[in-house]
This record gives sequence, structure tokens and C-alpha cells, in this order.
Amino acid sequence: MKKNTAILLIHCPDTPGIIAEISNFITVNKGNIVYLDQYVDHDNNAFFMRVEWDITSFLIPKERIGEYFNTLYAQKYAMEFRLYFAEQKPRMCIFVSKMSHCLYDMLARWSAGEWNVDIPLIISNHEDLRPIAEKFGIAYHVFPVTPENKAAQEAAELELMRKNGVTFIVLARYMQVISDDFIKAYPDRIINIHHSFLPAFVGAKPYHQAFDRGVKIIGATSHYVTSELDAGPIIEQDVARITHKDSVESIIGKGKDLEKIVLSRAVVKHIDRKVMVFKNKTIVFE
Amino acid sequence: MKKNTAILLIHCPDTPGIIAEISNFITVNKGNIVYLDQYVDHDNNAFFMRVEWDITSFLIPKERIGEYFNTLYAQKYAMEFRLYFAEQKPRMCIFVSKMSHCLYDMLARWSAGEWNVDIPLIISNHEDLRPIAEKFGIAYHVFPVTPENKAAQEAAELELMRKNGVTFIVLARYMQVISDDFIKAYPDRIINIHHSFLPAFVGAKPYHQAFDRGVKIIGATSHYVTSELDAGPIIEQDVARITHKDSVESIIGKGKDLEKIVLSRAVVKHIDRKVMVFKNKTIVFE
Amino acid sequence: MKKNTAILLIHCPDTPGIIAEISNFITVNKGNIVYLDQYVDHDNNAFFMRVEWDITSFLIPKERIGEYFNTLYAQKYAMEFRLYFAEQKPRMCIFVSKMSHCLYDMLARWSAGEWNVDIPLIISNHEDLRPIAEKFGIAYHVFPVTPENKAAQEAAELELMRKNGVTFIVLARYMQVISDDFIKAYPDRIINIHHSFLPAFVGAKPYHQAFDRGVKIIGATSHYVTSELDAGPIIEQDVARITHKDSVESIIGKGKDLEKIVLSRAVVKHIDRKVMVFKNKTIVFE
Amino acid sequence: MKKNTAILLIHCPDTPGIIAEISNFITVNKGNIVYLDQYVDHDNNAFFMRVEWDITSFLIPKERIGEYFNTLYAQKYAMEFRLYFAEQKPRMCIFVSKMSHCLYDMLARWSAGEWNVDIPLIISNHEDLRPIAEKFGIAYHVFPVTPENKAAQEAAELELMRKNGVTFIVLARYMQVISDDFIKAYPDRIINIHHSFLPAFVGAKPYHQAFDRGVKIIGATSHYVTSELDAGPIIEQDVARITHKDSVESIIGKGKDLEKIVLSRAVVKHIDRKVMVFKNKTIVFE
Repeated sequence: MKKNTAILLIHCPDTPGIIAEISNFITVNKGNIVYLDQYVDHDNNAFFMRVEWDITSFLIPKERIGEYFNTLYAQKYAMEFRLYFAEQKPRMCIFVSKMSHCLYDMLARWSAGEWNVDIPLIISNHEDLRPIAEKFGIAYHVFPVTPENKAAQEAAELELMRKNGVTFIVLARYMQVISDDFIKAYPDRIINIHHSFLPAFVGAKPYHQAFDRGVKIIGATSHYVTSELDAGPIIEQDVARITHKDSVESIIGKGKDLEKIVLSRAVVKHIDRKVMVFKNKTIVFE
Repeated sequence: MKKNTAILLIHCPDTPGIIAEISNFITVNKGNIVYLDQYVDHDNNAFFMRVEWDITSFLIPKERIGEYFNTLYAQKYAMEFRLYFAEQKPRMCIFVSKMSHCLYDMLARWSAGEWNVDIPLIISNHEDLRPIAEKFGIAYHVFPVTPENKAAQEAAELELMRKNGVTFIVLARYMQVISDDFIKAYPDRIINIHHSFLPAFVGAKPYHQAFDRGVKIIGATSHYVTSELDAGPIIEQDVARITHKDSVESIIGKGKDLEKIVLSRAVVKHIDRKVMVFKNKTIVFE
Repeated sequence: MKKNTAILLIHCPDTPGIIAEISNFITVNKGNIVYLDQYVDHDNNAFFMRVEWDITSFLIPKERIGEYFNTLYAQKYAMEFRLYFAEQKPRMCIFVSKMSHCLYDMLARWSAGEWNVDIPLIISNHEDLRPIAEKFGIAYHVFPVTPENKAAQEAAELELMRKNGVTFIVLARYMQVISDDFIKAYPDRIINIHHSFLPAFVGAKPYHQAFDRGVKIIGATSHYVTSELDAGPIIEQDVARITHKDSVESIIGKGKDLEKIVLSRAVVKHIDRKVMVFKNKTIVFE
Repeated sequence: MKKNTAILLIHCPDTPGIIAEISNFITVNKGNIVYLDQYVDHDNNAFFMRVEWDITSFLIPKERIGEYFNTLYAQKYAMEFRLYFAEQKPRMCIFVSKMSHCLYDMLARWSAGEWNVDIPLIISNHEDLRPIAEKFGIAYHVFPVTPENKAAQEAAELELMRKNGVTFIVLARYMQVISDDFIKAYPDRIINIHHSFLPAFVGAKPYHQAFDRGVKIIGATSHYVTSELDAGPIIEQDVARITHKDSVESIIGKGKDLEKIVLSRAVVKHIDRKVMVFKNKTIVFE
């Protein structure tokens, strides 16, 4: 079912009347609102809104909507806004290392037509998962990383993604810390899955840490990557129960199921343009 | 923290511009919107909205808001609406039989000041829980029910509640089926807790039914009471895991924890005027 | 990590001393118990046990263990028992129709080496998922089913499975009711996924039923197939929260995630020989 | 339903034959095993077992069972063991400060006869909750704590508990750090509820920390108190979902429901003698 909608994500200081004015703007120009949700962060006096409307009969031409909105409202209210159209698919690059469960889960969804996204390429630091990429007919590029070549390889990766029009990145258990320069090229556009209930068990081997601490519940966390390790804005988390009978191995097994579900939930929220970032936290619209 | 707010619950056919118009009405009259959420049921072309605003500086006097709103909008849009003020507490009557867990949970919350509600009386068909009512200083009335006296007892209960200004009823494991006449006196205002994951295990002894069926998860359901047994609009549900090791007794134990949490969640939603009913389903605002 | 273990599943009337005698049998013959769990159904005076032990130094030859156990204990205690060896993998046949999510999830796990199972073939009543089978190098056989040819097609399917040494069957959203004769060929060995929280919403279109009823939680149930529709012994269930905002389509989307996880959890329990069936209920060892 | 059972908790180095020998000991002496579960920590070669048997016809007199078991098995296998009788209720002292939700939840369960425990006294550093103690007819003692008088007050508390035969302590949101000397008097016998998903958000104001970090799930953790703050063996944890819409206040509200359920689950496990501690982790039998 193709949707002919525009999606507007708005952020500005909270002022009375914004909702009225924007919904009025859409309605009088013959747009039909199919989704409207808003959130006010009273502590920071900040207003957030996501509105999606059918533009089939919209009086303002599609390519001018952004300009009109900017002139009429954004400047007046000191807004930051992003405008998307449902028919323009985001383009996702997946980074992997050796584990396949998250990759399979995303490719199965994409392949079944569940996700409104293009996947032009998969990047890895290892050859291992090339057969999976080939099963799904997606280009697979290997960039082995060493301390010496890291900067050069990242530059090559960025160039390759630029050529492929990549709009966001998913680190699907990619076992390399990426540099600040790389992160700056895709701000709030790199989604990672960390295999713990953050902020517990930051860093390496979180399942081993969980086992050692004797927790009764493990978790997984998907978040946007920032320069501080495992400290970026959290998009989605979930948990699973364990007992004293669980070994590190069985925890890893249960954790894999968590990781793929949590990562896929976060990715589809990003694909559907339902996530906003503010002060290192996310607003995730339903 | 006392809130000086008005709460408006609106239901009407979906028409473009309603959100704009209502939020504008509040804003131009110097009301400050603290909460706005809406929902469109596209299948039924039905619009639902809950808006709450601070009326401290509102230009329209409190006692006239309903009249103004009716004149200006309700007639125009064929709306049904309900108007509440946060400072006017709903008045709850609790019906119990012999089990105390739900009663304790609600009284503990009320006693700690968590709930914006008055509890003028508790009604039961048994003497058993009178000591609990006395602990909390609430009037406790016993109406033993037999097939012969049922109509008369229900009439007496209704009269007692009328005198006490009761606005809604909670059946906290009250083990009597109530009559249609009784239900009609409090439409969408009688909350029951059924100890199963409805619509599974309707009727008597649902935990025994669950045990016999060998389910791996049990549930509890709070719903508004309608004339069809256990078939009214569902407000809240939750579940708990069981295994083959669980006996009927241990299932009942786990179920009690579910029941009290699920019932209390439903009741506080009703107290906060966050539930609307449409076509035997609920809209539950956050 | 290859395990050289024997697995014994025992069921008999409960009698004092069974645990002592069996654990003694294993120990004195130099077996090392790596897992022992038992369960007594007091209502039915029935005893169940799963014991797994390392047979590397076991004094009784592998091929004689069953005979010895039968002679020494099974007859004495009126036991039913099943004996497995971890190195003998069960052989699974997957039945599918048009939906791919459960199939992908299982093949991804198998392909990553997580499951100790062989998958010699996939059977379908449609061509649609053949490309997925081919991606994973598994034979894909199509048996279109009509009321007229059903008996013949099922016979052909059974013959094909017999030739391939299939030991159990998984119905991964296979949209055909299978016949009693077919079921009898694999008693307690056909695992189905039903997309509801059974016993709620038996039969067709359970998500539509859930939407119409207005439940706040949906579920999925994996169970062994018996001649009564959706009424077989339940192996695993799980649930997900929905709200009034969910459409039938979004419920189906959330449901798919449930279905694949619940089905895979049930299948791996079967693969690991951790499920016993008694009086239409399951004992599922950890 | 009074149970006439003995409960044996055993811990020793793992050796083949222990289960056989102990279950044999019980059976030949005409005890009827009603519960047996065991766990082997392979990393530490440590064996743990909980066995409960009916002693109505047991040949060894109740008061000699410990001695016999020690002579016949404990010395042979280098066991530590604890022997309890179901009819001897543990005696619990509850420590509170100003918040009532956990206290109410426990007293409601105790009052309804759900828990096999005596509650001879409640201790607090504030007067606030005295009315609740009086409602339930339990002695309430106030020990205001300052840095100067802390050692003396703790000594007085210990003396009071000694006189009342207290066997374990529950800190039900008691807002004082207790000293090492106090902890040593009740090793693995002081249960605390911490209002976070430990090890995340150790220390003060964990809900504020959770809000600031932007987590999507909050938790509560009950654990035995050790000298390191919030780092003792975890008995039980649970979580609840939050969104960006939750304020610190609404998080605190949701958290209270978690806290009382998690604490009560941990306490009943302790009451039923189902928890063992080893290397700062718990084994929690079902």
C-alpha cells in the first residue's frame, strides 16, 4: 500500500498555539492529517511534534512545502524542522562482523517487504557473512581494520556510502569502535545494538559481566552512536529473564533473540521517521 | 500538588480542522494546554480527543465553559463531550466479597495520597472484610444477597450510593453477578477485575480452567461491566508466566498479584478521566 | 562443542526411591550426570524425569543402554521411557504456505549452527517461498491441496518424509488443516504456531478477532497438533502489548515478531528433547 | 494447610552420587520427598540442593535429623547444610522510613495468611508510618539516626531484634545506610529493595538518574545487603516500560508498583527457604 504523505518533524521552544496553527496550515491547504502527535518537555520548555498528512490534494506543490513552511512558521517560532515524503525511502548501510542473527532478521523483514527502506550495501571487517549478502543480492564490501589503516578505511567506507546515497547506518554487532570523524558524518544517523541493559555493563563482554554480577534479567539496548562509548540516545530496550542455571553460553543465546528484536524495532522507527533526538535522549513517536 | 485544570473528552465524526479549532479556542482564551492527545478511528470515521488545560487565567468562567463549548463547537460538529475539573474528585464505591488483596492495594494507594479520589463507602455481601474498612476509617455496609432478595438489595445499594454521591463503582473480586438494572444506573462506570486473560476463560473458576488447559501464561483483565458476562470493554490486561510445575494454588497466588496491579491501573485511568468507550472498546489515553 | 551424552525421558507412577535408583544406576556405571530434573504430578500420581549424562566412560555400551534400562527399571516401575543420544540429530520437515517470517527465523538459527537439527526438506502448498529454500540449499517440494486430492497429497508427503527420515514436523504458518491420519503418523511430533493467546481466538483470523474484541494484549501459542483444532498440548506462549491505536495491520506486524520467537522457542525445546506430553499438557524441562 | 516437612539446603563440592545417596537416605527412612531440586555450578565445581520431605513417618526423630545427617553425609562430602522445619516460622523485622507502599503490600499478604512468617516488630527512623503498624497490631519502634548516635542506635536495634527472636530483616525503602557491624549480625539475612535495575544507577535517586539517561525501561532489584552499597547478591528483579512522556514523578509512580512486587517476591522466597548464596550470587529454587 503506497502512501502519498508528507512527514514533518518539528522542534522549537514551547509557545501556546503552535498545534492550532500547524494543523490549520495543513487543513486549509487541503491536506488530510493521518497522524499527529506532540510532546512538550516542560523542564526544557521544548516542543516536539510529528505530523503526517496526505498530500494528494495539497494545494502547495510538494517541492515547495519546505520553503513555505520555513517562511511562514519556522522562522516565526525559531523551529528546527525536517520534512520527509513517505515515497522517498531512506537508504540503509548495514555494518557487520561475524555474527549473523541481526543481519538475517533485518534482511528477512526487508525481503518480505515489511520495511520501507533500500539497502544498497553491507560493509564488514570480515569475509564471514558474504554468503548471506549474496543470498539476498546485496553488495558486500570488506574493509579490514587495523590501528594503522583505520582512518583510511573509514574514509573509504564514507566515500562508498556517499556514492550509494546512504542516509543512515546500522551497526549490527559490528565489533569495531568507530571514530569521531566517522560519527560526525552521520549525526543521529548511526544505530548501534549494545547487548546489555544500558547503562549497566558498558563496553566489552556485557553478558560475561551480567553473569558475574548475578543479575536475574538481561537486556539489549539500541541507541544512536555518539563519541562517548555506549552513551548515546537510547531508542529501544528490552529484557529477558535468566536464572542461576544460565551459563554464559545460554545467556548469549537468549541475548541474541533480544538483540535482533530490539535492533529491528529501533531501525523501523528510524525508517518511519518517528525518532527525534534532544539533549542525548530520544522522543519516539508511536 | 493541586492542579487547577479542566479536562475535556470529545467524541464526534472525524472532520478536518477539529484539533486546530479546539486548541485555538483554548489558546485565545488564555488557557495553557498541558495535555493533548487524539485518536482517529478510520474504520468508523470517529474522532476522539482528550485535552487538559490550566484554567487559572482562562477568560471563560469555570461554570460557563461547558455551555460555551456546547454552543460554539459541540453542536457544530455533532460532538459528545464530557467536561471535568481536576479539583472535583470522583467518588468511588468498592464492592468486595471475601478476598482482600485488591481492596488492600487500592486503599494503600488512596491512603498514601496517590489517587485523586474519594472513597465514601465499601459494600459487601459478607462481613469478612469489615476489619480492613475499619482500619482505613471507611464505612462498610453488608448486603447479603439471595435469589429472592437480590432486586431489593440492589435497589438499596443504589440508594445508598446515590446518597453518598458515588460516581463510579469498582468490583474488587465481588463474587455476585449484578443485574442489568444495576448496570444501567452506572453505564461505563462499573469496573470489574476478571482473573483471566479475556476472552479466554470466561465465567467461573478461570484459574482452574487455565490449569486444565495447560497454558503457559495466565492473565487478568479489568473491564467495564455490561449486561453480557465478562464481555464489556477492556481497560487493561496483564499476564504472568507459569510452568507445568504450577498447581492451581500457586496459579491463584501469582494471579492475585496480577489482579491487584491490573485493577489498580484501570481504576487510576478512570479516576484521571483518561478512558473513553466506543463500540464496546476503550480508548485509553496516556 | 559436541556433547557425548545420553538423554533419558521417563514417565511412570510416582513411587518413593525412583530418583535414588536411577541416579545410582548412572553413577555406579561411571556415567556423569550433567542434567537432572524431575516433576511429580501429585493429582495424577505421575512421575516425570529428564536425566542427561556423559557416556564417555559409561560401562554399558551405548547400543545396550536401552535394553539394560528396560530390564532393570522400566518393567519394575511400569515406566514409559525414551532414550536419545545428543549426537543423533532429530530431522525436521518445515511446512509453509506464503508467509516467510517464521521460516527465515528458523533457517537463520539452523544456518548459524545454533540448532542441533537436520532439515532435509521443506514442504509447501504454494511455490512462493521456494527462493528462500534455495538460498539455504534445502529441497523444496510443492503439494497443492484441494478437497479432492488432499488424502493423496498427504500420503505423498508422508512417503517423502519417510524416505528422508523425518522425525518431526513444524507447521510454520502452514494454512491447511491436516487430517487425523496425517497427525497419527507423527503423534506429539507436529508443532504448530497459532497466532493468538490460546484458548482465546481459536480458528481463522485471530488477529481480526482480537482487534474486534478490543484486547490490550495479543499473543502467540505453539502447540503439538492433535485432532481437535488449536486444542493440542501447549509448548510455549508469549504476548505483546497493543493499544487502541493499533490497526489490524499493525497488530499483524507485532504478531509476526511474536510468532517467530514463540515457534522457535518451542522447536528448540523439542530438538533438545526437553518436552514430554501427558493428558494434553506438556512438561517442559529447562 | 499445615505442612509437616523438613527442608534441607545443601552445598558442597560436586561429586558423583550425592543425589542418589541423599534421596536414598530419605526414602529408606520412610520420608516422602515432596520437592527436590539441585544445581551444579560447573565453573566452581560446586553442588547445591534443596530437598523437602514429609517427616510424618520419618524413622529419625525430628530433633536428631541434623545430627544424623551431619554424621552420615555432611562430613563425608564436606557439606555445608541448613535444616529447617516448615512449622517453624521465620521471624521478620521490617525497617521503614516514610514511604508506605512496600510495607502495605507485605502486611496485606501476611494479614491474609499468604506468608508463613511472624512479624514481631517494625523499626523506623521516623514516626510517619506508626499508624499503619497500629492498623495491623504490630509493635512500632522509632530509632532516629544521626551520625553521632548511629552506632548506639544500631546496637539498640540489634538488641531489640535479639529479644524478639528476629531471624531476618527487610529494608522496605529504609533510607539509611546500615553499618558493617549491623550487616555482620545478619549475614545473607537482610533483604533490601533498590529502585533501579542494578547494577545500573547505584546509590541515591536512581529514578532521577534513569530519567536523565533517557532509558526506555526502569527496574527494581531486591538483594541481600553486603558491606558494598547496592552490590550484594541479587534475589529478584523486574522492569517496567517508560517513554519520553514520563516525568520523574510518573517514573516514581510506576517504580513503586515494581518495588513492592519485586520485594515481596524476594521475601517470600526467603521465607520459604528457597534462596542460597554463593560467591555473591544467589541460587533461587522454584
